[in-house]
Amino acid sequence: MAGKIYSLIIIGGGPAGMTAGIYAGRQRMKTLLLTKDFGGQMTKKAVPIENYPGFEKISALDLISRMKNHLKKGEIEIKEGEEVVSIKKENEVFEVKTKKGNTYFSHAIIVATGADPRKLKIPGEEEFLGKGVSYCVLCDAPLFKEKEVAVIGGGESGFEAAVALSNWAKKVYILEFAKEVKASQKIQEEAKRTQKIEIITEAKVKEIKGEKFVKEILFEDLKEKKEKTLKVNGVFVEIGTIPASNFLKNLVEFNQKGEIKVNPKTQETSLPGLFAAGDVTDNLFKQIVIAAGEGAKAALFAYFYLKKKNLL
Amino acid sequence: MAGKIYSLIIIGGGPAGMTAGIYAGRQRMKTLLLTKDFGGQMTKKAVPIENYPGFEKISALDLISRMKNHLKKGEIEIKEGEEVVSIKKENEVFEVKTKKGNTYFSHAIIVATGADPRKLKIPGEEEFLGKGVSYCVLCDAPLFKEKEVAVIGGGESGFEAAVALSNWAKKVYILEFAKEVKASQKIQEEAKRTQKIEIITEAKVKEIKGEKFVKEILFEDLKEKKEKTLKVNGVFVEIGTIPASNFLKNLVEFNQKGEIKVNPKTQETSLPGLFAAGDVTDNLFKQIVIAAGEGAKAALFAYFYLKKKNLL
Repeated sequence: MAGKIYSLIIIGGGPAGMTAGIYAGRQRMKTLLLTKDFGGQMTKKAVPIENYPGFEKISALDLISRMKNHLKKGEIEIKEGEEVVSIKKENEVFEVKTKKGNTYFSHAIIVATGADPRKLKIPGEEEFLGKGVSYCVLCDAPLFKEKEVAVIGGGESGFEAAVALSNWAKKVYILEFAKEVKASQKIQEEAKRTQKIEIITEAKVKEIKGEKFVKEILFEDLKEKKEKTLKVNGVFVEIGTIPASNFLKNLVEFNQKGEIKVNPKTQETSLPGLFAAGDVTDNLFKQIVIAAGEGAKAALFAYFYLKKKNLL
Repeated sequence: MAGKIYSLIIIGGGPAGMTAGIYAGRQRMKTLLLTKDFGGQMTKKAVPIENYPGFEKISALDLISRMKNHLKKGEIEIKEGEEVVSIKKENEVFEVKTKKGNTYFSHAIIVATGADPRKLKIPGEEEFLGKGVSYCVLCDAPLFKEKEVAVIGGGESGFEAAVALSNWAKKVYILEFAKEVKASQKIQEEAKRTQKIEIITEAKVKEIKGEKFVKEILFEDLKEKKEKTLKVNGVFVEIGTIPASNFLKNLVEFNQKGEIKVNPKTQETSLPGLFAAGDVTDNLFKQIVIAAGEGAKAALFAYFYLKKKNLL
């Protein structure tokens, strides 16, 4: 086996991964952080962040850059643009392979790869991706100035998306499959204040149609049991996320959602030496400060794990 | 029974309590936060905080005031100067009594009263707090790079502190009052391997001396029955903490340290409707960002608890 062996490899650059990196640096572990990019789920936040304690209101980009600077102040190695595709463990050594073809070795791992947006899997969704279909309001909202758009999903992120879109679009529909929307009272009130947002519940989205660009969305009204169309120029899909845990298949235990099962006291997974933190885990709430706390826990527990095994 | 019934009463104004308050406000729960003061364990930090993600370096007072302003932005009631002395639960209603003689009622409670480090109660201890005297190795170890330090206490946490300090300091003394240290063999072996740690048993610490900063520690060698001094720049007091949980006696389950046992996934205690977060719990690491994450979890889970019980 070739190559230098790190004490710890952290995979992911969201709040969990960055916090794990900050703590790993302070524990003086020989640490490598591998990530596609920085920010994780925060990069997709369309409205300012108001629930990370210490900042009454901060843009996602600002908070990401503050955390990134904080991380980089520590003495750990960071490689951006690296996507991990497989992990193997043999004799207390993890072998981590990336899409670029690089291989890294370590005695412990923290997986903090977060989650990717869930797809609708309906006709038109792929065809019109980038032509009206989007998973990132923050990125694409300004394209819909004075236009009509639909947000699919009446959860917290669906409402956040709609509120953000209301700064640009002249009309925003929220389409929710269930009988009731699940967003917090606070964001529902904000949505109401915009006077631009119309909520349609019991709507089962069936197809996105258009020519060069999205023109309408077809849905089944489950109350009236009939098909309806909405003329919209944009469709923002906000129906939740899929944990980015595929590269761990057959290595650790997952729950039914594909989230990594962890011991929430230590962030241990079913594989000794491999820890997980943040949105990729089976924690109950996907929140920045919760992910950050878990990243800290994972790094501290990894430290004690390595000490106990004489691997530090 | 008289008086208005809150949905939620949060007890404590440290990072866990303040974050619980921020989240409770955002969930629009009718919430009352009772606290003696704000900041919790942070108030004892006279050196800058460098491990709360987003702030490379911030004074404890600054971070407290930022979190406090953030908290106060929400629509919850706050009463400062209130120390809770007892809690009773009857028919889904909690009755909370304070030292001032006030009584408050709620359907759910989050206890986030923190823990206080056990003090030596010797001359110099208060005087040099933040000037060499510390109760938090995780926070302050990096300040003692290439310096000599003493850890008071030969228990598990004393040894853990010493091992952590050995990554920075060039020499670490452990002073233990008893004839033998009480730490596990494992951690004792780790301490040995560092080759930087010297253990002095039967040492009764009597005084911490210095000028602007700690210079030496005075102790009685109980074997030789004479006073001795050690030249050190830092004194880490690791003789345990006292969880501020006395007012919950006979109400919930504790571990041997007097910490409240919680389900770390939900922050539930053994008493339905009563949640706990932060340093008062049996969590493994007493850290600001971990406490904050737990406060968020407790508030969100309390919200679902109350919803489920039709108490919101």
